[in-house]
Amino acid sequence: MKISKLGEFGIIQDLIAPEFKELVQQHMTGIGDDCAIIPINDKTSHIFTTDMLVENRHFLRGKISPFQLGYKSLAVNLSDIAAMGGTPRASYLSLGLPSDIEISWVEEFMKGYKSLSAEFNVPLLGGDTTSSDDTIIINVGVNGEIHHEKIKRRSEARSGDLICVTGHLGNSAAGLKMLLSDIPVSTANEDILLQHLMPRPHVPEGLWLAESKSVHAMIDLSDGIGSDLMHILKASGVAAHIALEKLPFSDALVRLAQDQNWEAQELAVSGGEDYVLLLTVSADAYENMAKSFRESFNSALYCIGSIEKAAPRVRYTYNGKEQDSSKTGFRHF
Amino acid sequence: MKISKLGEFGIIQDLIAPEFKELVQQHMTGIGDDCAIIPINDKTSHIFTTDMLVENRHFLRGKISPFQLGYKSLAVNLSDIAAMGGTPRASYLSLGLPSDIEISWVEEFMKGYKSLSAEFNVPLLGGDTTSSDDTIIINVGVNGEIHHEKIKRRSEARSGDLICVTGHLGNSAAGLKMLLSDIPVSTANEDILLQHLMPRPHVPEGLWLAESKSVHAMIDLSDGIGSDLMHILKASGVAAHIALEKLPFSDALVRLAQDQNWEAQELAVSGGEDYVLLLTVSADAYENMAKSFRESFNSALYCIGSIEKAAPRVRYTYNGKEQDSSKTGFRHF
Repeated sequence: MKISKLGEFGIIQDLIAPEFKELVQQHMTGIGDDCAIIPINDKTSHIFTTDMLVENRHFLRGKISPFQLGYKSLAVNLSDIAAMGGTPRASYLSLGLPSDIEISWVEEFMKGYKSLSAEFNVPLLGGDTTSSDDTIIINVGVNGEIHHEKIKRRSEARSGDLICVTGHLGNSAAGLKMLLSDIPVSTANEDILLQHLMPRPHVPEGLWLAESKSVHAMIDLSDGIGSDLMHILKASGVAAHIALEKLPFSDALVRLAQDQNWEAQELAVSGGEDYVLLLTVSADAYENMAKSFRESFNSALYCIGSIEKAAPRVRYTYNGKEQDSSKTGFRHF
Repeated sequence: MKISKLGEFGIIQDLIAPEFKELVQQHMTGIGDDCAIIPINDKTSHIFTTDMLVENRHFLRGKISPFQLGYKSLAVNLSDIAAMGGTPRASYLSLGLPSDIEISWVEEFMKGYKSLSAEFNVPLLGGDTTSSDDTIIINVGVNGEIHHEKIKRRSEARSGDLICVTGHLGNSAAGLKMLLSDIPVSTANEDILLQHLMPRPHVPEGLWLAESKSVHAMIDLSDGIGSDLMHILKASGVAAHIALEKLPFSDALVRLAQDQNWEAQELAVSGGEDYVLLLTVSADAYENMAKSFRESFNSALYCIGSIEKAAPRVRYTYNGKEQDSSKTGFRHF
């Protein structure tokens, strides 16, 4: 049987993770969360995450500048550190480059990578470079630190929790559609495109949320609510209700979606790469938390649904009416 | 200018490392040794290394079994941990796989990866899987721990030190030549091939050597003596003398080289992937150290030369006669 039948999660869950369970020592966390966790003393854990980006799968060379690609390669990893509530400490970069790549391309890539490194004071401490046949291959690893008590795992969602997100949804998926459909960039839509090309990792938000014991589970949105929320539900053994009318969209996305006849809800649920954080919070703590979140970040902590006591699944409603979340998306609101 | 003009070391040294120096905090070690080093407390440092293997560059799918490739992907990284004198703690694996790869191939790959993981009690704690166009891409990262005082850096070689290696040289390069020339495998040469396909990382040797303050600089031999020793010489600001007649070869390699009209010395100096450790030792400590090394490992700590006070270069002699180390190799002994 070909691996294409299994898919990415199938390979990890069926072929890789079970084999290694016996080697994972007590207190370590292995495959199955945003980061691996290794305790280094009574108070602190070391966390680590890694992501591989392959040309034509994760990016198109002609559709993203090397500066943006360098920035994004680090950003998607910092986002995983943010999802645990951790502080990034250092990064490692492996580059596989076709021999016809210009030196100026690598220089621009590194400038983008460094601009984000400098913003979060995360030095690049090592890596590897090699030649590749035709495609650019990028593998970034980031390690970070976190207090044991502040770790936010996928497995801690509780029935009754509210589900929140730390920013607008759907922009990245819309930006990708703009690129693929060659929609002209204007002042009205350029921010949408930029959130696809250079997503800001929500590291400060993650650190802030990690301070509160009322925040139970957390994950970053790399594959869309539908897929990422299911990771929390499966790890926690609970179900979720998402009120689609509460999904937060930027004004620019609402206008663009109207112009192009796109469903913003579908972009948020099935699209990916928004790299905002999705978290579950004690219902009684939400109001105060949202207030101080706004004071800290000048931005809302959006409540989009709640955790329910049931087998893992997502139930979608739109203004109270049940919605089918099958492949057709949400075209018929 | 194309990056092919710069080469791997050029990209790292000219384009990447200088940009990040200002972000590397005090006591951290970044690009330029076998591992990055981050202190985690007064006594202990966290170390990290990563390597990318690309099909057709680092391996040929038809010439190495998936089990062997899984083993080797981890082995080359454990070897970098060994070169610092560290203890490996956990590994991370990113796999880019063409969609036509069989599930059984991945299963065998993971079996090989796991067999070495189990040997050194190093759990696989995370990673990434993705599809790729045509080629298999493997990126492994390993973190480890080490006491500050025991770290063996490339920069500590001193004039008068003896240069030692922890095992036979040239086998891996000969094994590669066997594969590429389709030389039939026999009981006489199968060990040579196996040392190319499944190199044993010298982690126990590295830990043992790290206990001695008489061991100054250390590196693992991934690119051959010529290239790897130069890393130590440049980092330490010293020169080296290598006595070619002292290079240790297995009996099997000597016979194979005679049969095939290969120069074993050339394989050791210019070939790579032996993954034994090369170290510099105080001359007065060598004799006792070699004796207890033999008692511990039932194997010799071979002395192959010495460190000299001069600008970084390697001077080769054969039975006292100066040899030219230019591109023609050592064909004229």
